[in-house]
Amino acid sequence: MITTEISLSQYSAMSWLVQLFLLLCCTKCSLSWVHEHTRGQVWPLPRYISYQNTLNYINPANFSFKKITNNTCPILEEAVKRYTDVIKKMLPHHHHQWQGCSDGESLQEVLVALTGPCEEWPYLHMDEHYEVHVNRPDYDNLTIVSSSSVWGLLRGLESFSQLVTPSTDAAGCLVLNSTDILDYPRFKHRGLLLDTSRHYLPVSVILNILAAMEMNKMNVFHWHIVDDESFPYQSITYPSLSDKGAYDPKTLIYTQNNVKSIIEYARLRGIRVIPEFDSPGHTKAWGGGANKLLTACFTNGSFNGEFGPIDPSRSQNFKFVRTLLEEVKSVFPDKYIHVGGDEVQFGFQCWMSNPTVTQFMKDNNITSPENLEGYYMNQVLDMVYNINASAIVWEEVFKHGDPLHNDTVIQIWRSNRTEMLNEVTKEGKYALLSQGWYLDHISDQWQDFYKIDPTDFNGTVAQYQLVLGGEACMWGEMVDETNIVSRIWPRASAVAERLWSQKVVGKTAPAPRLNEHVCRMKQRGVAAQPANGP
Amino acid sequence: MITTEISLSQYSAMSWLVQLFLLLCCTKCSLSWVHEHTRGQVWPLPRYISYQNTLNYINPANFSFKKITNNTCPILEEAVKRYTDVIKKMLPHHHHQWQGCSDGESLQEVLVALTGPCEEWPYLHMDEHYEVHVNRPDYDNLTIVSSSSVWGLLRGLESFSQLVTPSTDAAGCLVLNSTDILDYPRFKHRGLLLDTSRHYLPVSVILNILAAMEMNKMNVFHWHIVDDESFPYQSITYPSLSDKGAYDPKTLIYTQNNVKSIIEYARLRGIRVIPEFDSPGHTKAWGGGANKLLTACFTNGSFNGEFGPIDPSRSQNFKFVRTLLEEVKSVFPDKYIHVGGDEVQFGFQCWMSNPTVTQFMKDNNITSPENLEGYYMNQVLDMVYNINASAIVWEEVFKHGDPLHNDTVIQIWRSNRTEMLNEVTKEGKYALLSQGWYLDHISDQWQDFYKIDPTDFNGTVAQYQLVLGGEACMWGEMVDETNIVSRIWPRASAVAERLWSQKVVGKTAPAPRLNEHVCRMKQRGVAAQPANGP
Repeated sequence: MITTEISLSQYSAMSWLVQLFLLLCCTKCSLSWVHEHTRGQVWPLPRYISYQNTLNYINPANFSFKKITNNTCPILEEAVKRYTDVIKKMLPHHHHQWQGCSDGESLQEVLVALTGPCEEWPYLHMDEHYEVHVNRPDYDNLTIVSSSSVWGLLRGLESFSQLVTPSTDAAGCLVLNSTDILDYPRFKHRGLLLDTSRHYLPVSVILNILAAMEMNKMNVFHWHIVDDESFPYQSITYPSLSDKGAYDPKTLIYTQNNVKSIIEYARLRGIRVIPEFDSPGHTKAWGGGANKLLTACFTNGSFNGEFGPIDPSRSQNFKFVRTLLEEVKSVFPDKYIHVGGDEVQFGFQCWMSNPTVTQFMKDNNITSPENLEGYYMNQVLDMVYNINASAIVWEEVFKHGDPLHNDTVIQIWRSNRTEMLNEVTKEGKYALLSQGWYLDHISDQWQDFYKIDPTDFNGTVAQYQLVLGGEACMWGEMVDETNIVSRIWPRASAVAERLWSQKVVGKTAPAPRLNEHVCRMKQRGVAAQPANGP
Repeated sequence: MITTEISLSQYSAMSWLVQLFLLLCCTKCSLSWVHEHTRGQVWPLPRYISYQNTLNYINPANFSFKKITNNTCPILEEAVKRYTDVIKKMLPHHHHQWQGCSDGESLQEVLVALTGPCEEWPYLHMDEHYEVHVNRPDYDNLTIVSSSSVWGLLRGLESFSQLVTPSTDAAGCLVLNSTDILDYPRFKHRGLLLDTSRHYLPVSVILNILAAMEMNKMNVFHWHIVDDESFPYQSITYPSLSDKGAYDPKTLIYTQNNVKSIIEYARLRGIRVIPEFDSPGHTKAWGGGANKLLTACFTNGSFNGEFGPIDPSRSQNFKFVRTLLEEVKSVFPDKYIHVGGDEVQFGFQCWMSNPTVTQFMKDNNITSPENLEGYYMNQVLDMVYNINASAIVWEEVFKHGDPLHNDTVIQIWRSNRTEMLNEVTKEGKYALLSQGWYLDHISDQWQDFYKIDPTDFNGTVAQYQLVLGGEACMWGEMVDETNIVSRIWPRASAVAERLWSQKVVGKTAPAPRLNEHVCRMKQRGVAAQPANGP
């Protein structure tokens, strides 16, 4: 039986495989996998999913995806290889020898149908719709993953792979229910911020996190690449920035090749890489490699040895920022660049202490440090648009009333989210939610993140449509390669489901599904920590 | 210049190598090692340490320890091998080729002198005093680690190894100041509790944690091996306990060989392994493999399907516990067994619902569940002493006024610690502090743990002497192999220093030393998380 649109309340009665176990043992999953969990359910929950009453078996040695497309599509080629590998590695070691399944239908081939053009780069408005049908009786019992875009196929292949689990008997085969999925995301921008300034993160760790993002259908890697503490980005134009600003100028940097490989790894997974070059504050580490870029702070009329935000009184500094942004635009293919703009007020005192800056303000009728900040951000935003890019900024830039371009995105991180979401969208601006989704707040559990919804404010439909999504933020003060993966996952998975699935997912209790998802991430090499206690 | 007793205030003026760096690069240490940190300082801080004004160089290829002892002493043999390895692996990879040091004195041989008998098993009252002298001018410029016990030598070798660091120039050699250390611990019992019931921990993870304990001079592994959630200990006498009570009876268990290898690994590092078989509560996982061991709970006069604490109305159950404890005594060589006794009150309602139990109480003039608990614990404590062991119990056993043997140790975990430490020691009982040192309280940082001192109560000297030390507790609900190591270290290091070093260590700011120690742990394969932000 096939239903093309199935309400969530139906699925539980229809499924027999996909039931909750109080599974006190699960060596097939993970040594520490001990909690109540589902089997073969998908995270984030698809919009429509219907499990049928037939079971299918997969012999990993005799299984393949078959592409159906009019185009050559390298991302699809790679994805098919990747998911073939996922399926083949799903049986635990002692089951690598196929022992056969006693009954049911054997599933040997999955069609992967791209019905639209092949695209090369993920982007804000990319299409991620897809369908999955497993053993479809009204269509020759085919199993098919289909989408009009390669991005949808990536999401569909991930969902298909999540339907498959090792059988619970000793047969050592893989099983999945006959299933129908019609799916698409609720929000277009489903991001994760990584901060590589407070602690350097090895490239391998970033790739591991990108792999996990794909498993959670997150599609934006917001790379907070530099900040006060270090400047690990090795610039082509200004190599002195990392020479002087990285923790180590030779080993603790991201070379152009590193950046390329990260962008490529993300691209193949439908993940945009949006770099953040935050200014005019949060730039201390830029100062060593850029002469007179930062404002010299004065006490009692003389330089006190400290430096503040970028000095907006020097026109050369705007030229410097513009050249840097031009390079950034050429290195990072995404349309958007994050230009920061947060917490500039911590530098106001320095700005106002510097006689050149205050003279500049007088000369230009700038009457307050807030206005000076606006003057600075204005120019930076114009630069961004002049190089045919678009900007994301932190909420302060909006709050200070700086003039913004139409496609500028405001990232809310600090204020009351209900009020800010309302204010930003009332002004017709795009909003991204991060407030409440700070992974460095270690007392916040996934349940806390899960409760937050970007449309929980009193707005119009037009306003809701301006909410592009949100980002979980992993600020780097207290994390490095030893603990960052387990700190992100599975807590960020809660944000991922909130941003993908429909608003009310209450009928399918998330905890047992998240337990399965943790298990799945661990199986695939992501060191996700326990989601819930025993 | 040598001083045999040097006050802590002197050391900082005397040292030039051991200074604080705002080291923005430290590839020699760790890729993520970016904080203000010391070089060549010892954690936990020795009682007396004096750095001299001469520098010594080590060529790892031409370095050895030379044992001076009248005994064969296998623990010492192993320790010398282990620390030789630590020294040889201290240079980063690209420096494995010795390039030589430009000047200073070459240190090729360290004498390791055991001046007393060789002991085989660590124990509560073992002697851990040691001295380290590096390039001692009044004694032929020898470098020596000496102690009258092998346990002291273990601590001394660890301290010596912590004095050594890679040179900061490009020479690729190891350096250390001439130094004198006279050292011994403030408390005898410096423990770490691991809970292998809520999540199973692979043996390799436990060994890694034991290795880190040695680096922190902790000497008790309190193995909370079983609990409500699972029974991973594979008993010789009662194999059904893990067959029915482990998360998986084949893979998620500790076999006798596993247990032996853990005890041996700990023994070689001077670490006692104290198993906890907590009863009569916290025993749900025992029930499947032990017929009628647990109390059947009743509702409205009939069994409701739930089980409570061990049923004290059946004499067979005491026989069962006694046989189990006899086995435990034969498997775990330490004098002490932890027999739990916490949170029994959560089972009182079940006890009182069961007609056999209430009839038993009536027959034996037991008038309250508290008294029934006392009746049970009394018998268990007697068993422990009858098999020539000693007991550690949780504080409830003391609070309920159960009669205790003289060497029973009360572990304080829940009450106001100041009051409980006072009350326990006023009664002449031994106390262990854990309250405030719960590693599962993830918002507590190392600074919070560091503030707590087991003698912070208003008692007499005789009372203070009854405080044996304390334990950091890593309860297992939310940790498994993905995050337990980074969650324990370096936060437990704060407890380790509190229990080893003198009470006032304020003159040597702990944060930069702890940053170095984190770096050192990572170098030696322990995934310690950042101690402090940048």
